[in-house]
Amino acid sequence: MKSKNINLLLVSFLLVWGSSFAQTANKDSLAKRHEEMMAIIMTQPKVPIKTIGILVYDGYNTLDAMGPYHTLAEIMGTKTFFIAKQKGMIKNQRGLQMKVDTSFTEVKNLDILVIPGGAVETFMQTKDTATLNWIKQIDKTTTYTTSVCTGAWILGATGLLQGKTATTNWYRAEEMLNSYGAKFKQERWVRDGKYWTSAGVTAGIDMSLAIIDELMGKKYTEGVMLDLEYNPKPPYNAGTPESSEKIVADMMKEMYDMALFPLIQKQIKK
Amino acid sequence: MKSKNINLLLVSFLLVWGSSFAQTANKDSLAKRHEEMMAIIMTQPKVPIKTIGILVYDGYNTLDAMGPYHTLAEIMGTKTFFIAKQKGMIKNQRGLQMKVDTSFTEVKNLDILVIPGGAVETFMQTKDTATLNWIKQIDKTTTYTTSVCTGAWILGATGLLQGKTATTNWYRAEEMLNSYGAKFKQERWVRDGKYWTSAGVTAGIDMSLAIIDELMGKKYTEGVMLDLEYNPKPPYNAGTPESSEKIVADMMKEMYDMALFPLIQKQIKK
Repeated sequence: MKSKNINLLLVSFLLVWGSSFAQTANKDSLAKRHEEMMAIIMTQPKVPIKTIGILVYDGYNTLDAMGPYHTLAEIMGTKTFFIAKQKGMIKNQRGLQMKVDTSFTEVKNLDILVIPGGAVETFMQTKDTATLNWIKQIDKTTTYTTSVCTGAWILGATGLLQGKTATTNWYRAEEMLNSYGAKFKQERWVRDGKYWTSAGVTAGIDMSLAIIDELMGKKYTEGVMLDLEYNPKPPYNAGTPESSEKIVADMMKEMYDMALFPLIQKQIKK
Repeated sequence: MKSKNINLLLVSFLLVWGSSFAQTANKDSLAKRHEEMMAIIMTQPKVPIKTIGILVYDGYNTLDAMGPYHTLAEIMGTKTFFIAKQKGMIKNQRGLQMKVDTSFTEVKNLDILVIPGGAVETFMQTKDTATLNWIKQIDKTTTYTTSVCTGAWILGATGLLQGKTATTNWYRAEEMLNSYGAKFKQERWVRDGKYWTSAGVTAGIDMSLAIIDELMGKKYTEGVMLDLEYNPKPPYNAGTPESSEKIVADMMKEMYDMALFPLIQKQIKK
């Protein structure tokens, strides 16, 4: 009985110890896993980023603004918001109204400024001194000053792209950027120092992810991509003039020319 | 002199004829080119599409709605607009307000209905009888009824996906769709008859382009892609649970579970 008791004790002990060991091992691995996850979630940006402002004006192009808005807001601990010359209702290129709660005069500094593009109304902004001056003031405080699509026309008009390499919407991209003293590079997005510029419309999402990658690293960026389920499957290898059927690229250029060329002609010939 | 004159005449004639021939050839080729372009621009959808309605509710996910809104509006001759239970200001998942001018009672039919997703507020919509009934009524009139991301939860809750193949946001996709009697297929977008469903958030853009391709063909779709400069360059091959680092996919699932699992648990266990 003695030995039996001892054996029972030993077996009991081994069972308890074994199970507690297993639990500990499990706990440890769970704790480690949790720690790893927390390390990703709590990633601090390389440079502190607290405020991300997106400049809008009547006629801004929806996805030029909404892509970066949705994407950059995924940097935790930041305030991402829209700014207009006057607060109130601002219309997109199709007349949809959104409520903008912040006016130029209320913003003295930003960590990231985003300037979306559009068509005719965007070119009008390049002539709006109040807008250009506000951008120049804010730019003095930013970590990154960025543009999407023809937003680069506005940024260019401030003079801030002088001598910089940049990109913009494919339409007369080189002519337009050259007219602002910038060097055109045909890329999805271009970074030159603190200036990030993207190609047209949807390229703003790729630029935003590249900014997040720069600030927060690969794991955090993959988390954002999963939140956006960003694993694009375009129906065709197209979306640039070079990759489109020639007749399509020519047609789009002619259509853009009809709407914009009379307006930008002087700018290009400068 | 005679022969000289004749020669001069001949030369003049040849010059004039030659140049007029060249002009005609040029004119013809220009006319042909113009005709080709007009044929693309004037493409009529396979099935007449006049109205495209995007259902929104407080808490809708920005790009779920804005991606298809921006993309589908490129079908010429259509009215693309937002619809809410009550008109007025509708907030996205971050509180941004947009003005919705059309209420349920004002819409009796649509050619395309788009149902965007979101998180907690989207699940709440699956319990909203007025919303589900409106969708079922409208669905009787649509050419296509579509959902983006967890918008498929709402569409599923109407019963319209019963026996259909569909997709949705990656998060507990199969469990959720099965709970609505649908068969989950892991694709960027899935079409089953008149029902189109897309994976999460940005997949709504790919689904919209696929719809345009179906209705308008390759050249028109390439035109739209060029207008969106849609030639995506994601920073990583990620954006799905399978393509992400495992720790990232696990982390995102746990974060979603924290927010959503207590709410959807009953639905899944049905």
